[in-house]
Amino acid sequence: MSNGDIFVGEVIGTAILILFGAGVCAAVTLHHSKARAAGWVVIAFGWGFGVLAGAYTAAPLSGGHLNPAVTLGVAVDTGEWSKVPLYILAQMVGAILGAVLAYLVYFSQFQANADEKNALPTLGIFSTGPEIRSPVANMMTEIIATIGLVLPILAFGKNDGIGIGQIPGQDAGIYGSGISILLVSLLVVGIGLSLGGPTGYAINPARDLGPRITHALLPIPNKGTSDWGYAWVPVAGPVIGGLLAGLIFNAAF
Amino acid sequence: MSNGDIFVGEVIGTAILILFGAGVCAAVTLHHSKARAAGWVVIAFGWGFGVLAGAYTAAPLSGGHLNPAVTLGVAVDTGEWSKVPLYILAQMVGAILGAVLAYLVYFSQFQANADEKNALPTLGIFSTGPEIRSPVANMMTEIIATIGLVLPILAFGKNDGIGIGQIPGQDAGIYGSGISILLVSLLVVGIGLSLGGPTGYAINPARDLGPRITHALLPIPNKGTSDWGYAWVPVAGPVIGGLLAGLIFNAAF
Amino acid sequence: MSNGDIFVGEVIGTAILILFGAGVCAAVTLHHSKARAAGWVVIAFGWGFGVLAGAYTAAPLSGGHLNPAVTLGVAVDTGEWSKVPLYILAQMVGAILGAVLAYLVYFSQFQANADEKNALPTLGIFSTGPEIRSPVANMMTEIIATIGLVLPILAFGKNDGIGIGQIPGQDAGIYGSGISILLVSLLVVGIGLSLGGPTGYAINPARDLGPRITHALLPIPNKGTSDWGYAWVPVAGPVIGGLLAGLIFNAAF
Amino acid sequence: MSNGDIFVGEVIGTAILILFGAGVCAAVTLHHSKARAAGWVVIAFGWGFGVLAGAYTAAPLSGGHLNPAVTLGVAVDTGEWSKVPLYILAQMVGAILGAVLAYLVYFSQFQANADEKNALPTLGIFSTGPEIRSPVANMMTEIIATIGLVLPILAFGKNDGIGIGQIPGQDAGIYGSGISILLVSLLVVGIGLSLGGPTGYAINPARDLGPRITHALLPIPNKGTSDWGYAWVPVAGPVIGGLLAGLIFNAAF
Repeated sequence: MSNGDIFVGEVIGTAILILFGAGVCAAVTLHHSKARAAGWVVIAFGWGFGVLAGAYTAAPLSGGHLNPAVTLGVAVDTGEWSKVPLYILAQMVGAILGAVLAYLVYFSQFQANADEKNALPTLGIFSTGPEIRSPVANMMTEIIATIGLVLPILAFGKNDGIGIGQIPGQDAGIYGSGISILLVSLLVVGIGLSLGGPTGYAINPARDLGPRITHALLPIPNKGTSDWGYAWVPVAGPVIGGLLAGLIFNAAF
Repeated sequence: MSNGDIFVGEVIGTAILILFGAGVCAAVTLHHSKARAAGWVVIAFGWGFGVLAGAYTAAPLSGGHLNPAVTLGVAVDTGEWSKVPLYILAQMVGAILGAVLAYLVYFSQFQANADEKNALPTLGIFSTGPEIRSPVANMMTEIIATIGLVLPILAFGKNDGIGIGQIPGQDAGIYGSGISILLVSLLVVGIGLSLGGPTGYAINPARDLGPRITHALLPIPNKGTSDWGYAWVPVAGPVIGGLLAGLIFNAAF
Repeated sequence: MSNGDIFVGEVIGTAILILFGAGVCAAVTLHHSKARAAGWVVIAFGWGFGVLAGAYTAAPLSGGHLNPAVTLGVAVDTGEWSKVPLYILAQMVGAILGAVLAYLVYFSQFQANADEKNALPTLGIFSTGPEIRSPVANMMTEIIATIGLVLPILAFGKNDGIGIGQIPGQDAGIYGSGISILLVSLLVVGIGLSLGGPTGYAINPARDLGPRITHALLPIPNKGTSDWGYAWVPVAGPVIGGLLAGLIFNAAF
Repeated sequence: MSNGDIFVGEVIGTAILILFGAGVCAAVTLHHSKARAAGWVVIAFGWGFGVLAGAYTAAPLSGGHLNPAVTLGVAVDTGEWSKVPLYILAQMVGAILGAVLAYLVYFSQFQANADEKNALPTLGIFSTGPEIRSPVANMMTEIIATIGLVLPILAFGKNDGIGIGQIPGQDAGIYGSGISILLVSLLVVGIGLSLGGPTGYAINPARDLGPRITHALLPIPNKGTSDWGYAWVPVAGPVIGGLLAGLIFNAAF
């Protein structure tokens, strides 16, 4: 994989992921949306199939990490750290871009919300926030949930049987075969359903920080706070979780 | 693929798609339906598994496009334009036919609705409509959502690993392997959940225009307007989105 | 496949299908069930994954038809009619047995229901019934919905790419490869969501008649009518639909 | 498979399963959770995708049983009993550990619950309980539901077509190929939807007893009873069910 392919793949793939993910949060949050108040199962499947869409699109170019926590877990596993900054940079660019696209899809809904007397806060469409604010507990939630993502992803690569061929140029140990990304997308649905209750499952620093930057920059009227005081938790937690998953994986396998 | 196979495949496949899709809209909309008011998740999975049913049925004959936006995206990618009109014609015929079949499945429900004092408008069962009418924003929504469909479809074909064999006679770059159509059907579920809120996600000119023609022609009493003023948006938006997806794909891959 | 294997396979497989299917209807219908009133999406996925459980279990023995409409559609396609009575007999035995098992799983709930002042009618847990009683329209619904099941099943076998190997001893044209049954189970979810509204989608004569016999025979107190006046519709409709699907398939492919 | 690999695999895999499973029960039960009251479909998919996450992670090390009922069914099938105690011990350790992890993920929510005037009972997050207490009926439910799990799992291994390769070192007859675990996870979703209504579908002695031990030991304030009087049912029922499934399988196949 050339550096250019990695960059393009991760930008496009992460943008698609966030387009779907921020999109589904807009869909269930904003008035004048056909999916308004459609419930948690819609959120979880929307994000999961966003992984499916984004990662299969990116996979032939970059392997389809779309998540610095995954990239870090793979680096711990393989010992290859040289391309980590490139991956993370591209993931951040993609996440910012994807949040802009989701905003454009729901442009009329955002405008209508701003015009209402009691405009809804909009940050929850872009980034996560805790139900009970407690940095230690929120960190613990994000760390465990991220291990619940990255450890299975690394282990999927050890199943000879779950795919058919290798994605061209792909590293061993991550998405080693064709059906893996489908499994990862269902895994992400599961994490959302099971572990998303307390903090909204960032489990991906780019997924949270990128759209938060978009939220801060976009001229959405009445948009409410971007809550920078919490922003470090959904970055640090998934980073720690991804590194720990790599260490656990190396110890166990 | 012979012209006859393409025509038959696209007619049958698109008819099945619309049978399921218009069917699920009838199921959640009309009174005296066991799925009445069953929610957005039902809509999204109904359409998605309609893609599964229709595209796997059509694939051995025509490749299973079922959507002019997909056909156009493939044409931009491959440079082969000669069969595009045949595909689109067959998709339109199939869509009109499928909407008739869905009407027959829910015949009693349509009759009962017409007999009610406040008959529900029926167009939403057949075709899409915006929550907030704004041609520019609605177009933007449909263009981005269609890119979110067609770009991943084109990229799926680049994943060596996601299938086992080639569908006989199929072009490279679209549904290149067996599991792809399952992935596309889940992708369509995801688009519905995430990007369907503002306009009801046509993302397919035949899916919208065909059933709108059926709605206009069928002798449904008290059926309400066919809203021809909006009809161009869910045609033009997906056409532009499909072409853009082909261009982005060619630039990136 | 020996006659003994076919019989055992179809009995076990259909029993599992009906255990899950009647089970999910009990789950959402009866009081004192954790899934009470859980909605149409639960019904549709419960039946679909019942197909997955039953058909993969039966497949190595009998091919996993579990449905006379499928058996008839395959017979039209292949011209092999000699084993059709054996398949249908085994499917009926399995369906009756599966309904008994579902009754045992929900035994306490059935007892509690019978003790209530206004006991719920229980037939809907076992067999289908129309929302609007109209033999012609109900037949039309069941015929079209069954074509929507059997035609894709037959076509799945034409996709070289959707599986890996052949199920031992299996006929060509039905479940020809490994992933097909997963696809069929999702197809059944889709039919439930989209086409189940008017009649509750029998789409399988054994699925409806077998449990209706069980309902008539079981000593459930306060069980209400077995509605034999409607019983012919969910038998005749799916039979006609399966035969028509075979004819359409032979004409198109 | 070395004894060490089996132990590590089953501990990690079962811990992930219970992290997701107890997690989703916390998610829909506790206040201050984004998934509060999200319904039965969320429970069923959360547990099912917990199987996906845990079993694919464990499979390369231990085959990914994660359930004494599965281990016993396999032992009846293969006649190999020597490693059964090791499997069950590791599954119990993993289940206890997984319940601790789920508690940590929802730590703030458990604290907030304890502080409320009418604290919710918390056992239902960890272990199953019947809607109608009746040992005989509850046993019958668990036995049949466990047969509905283990018999299809054993039969999946007879389908040549449902996977691509063998998981290294894996026994014949269980998860014999790559896609099987995905199928098992959907099967578990189906069992939850269809057969979980009366008792909450333990179908796995470790899944119930392990978290019950965790519940008894953890210093959760206001946690309510651990209901040891019922604890034997979700152990004995699945054990009997797993053994019966092995016997039925051997007789039928």
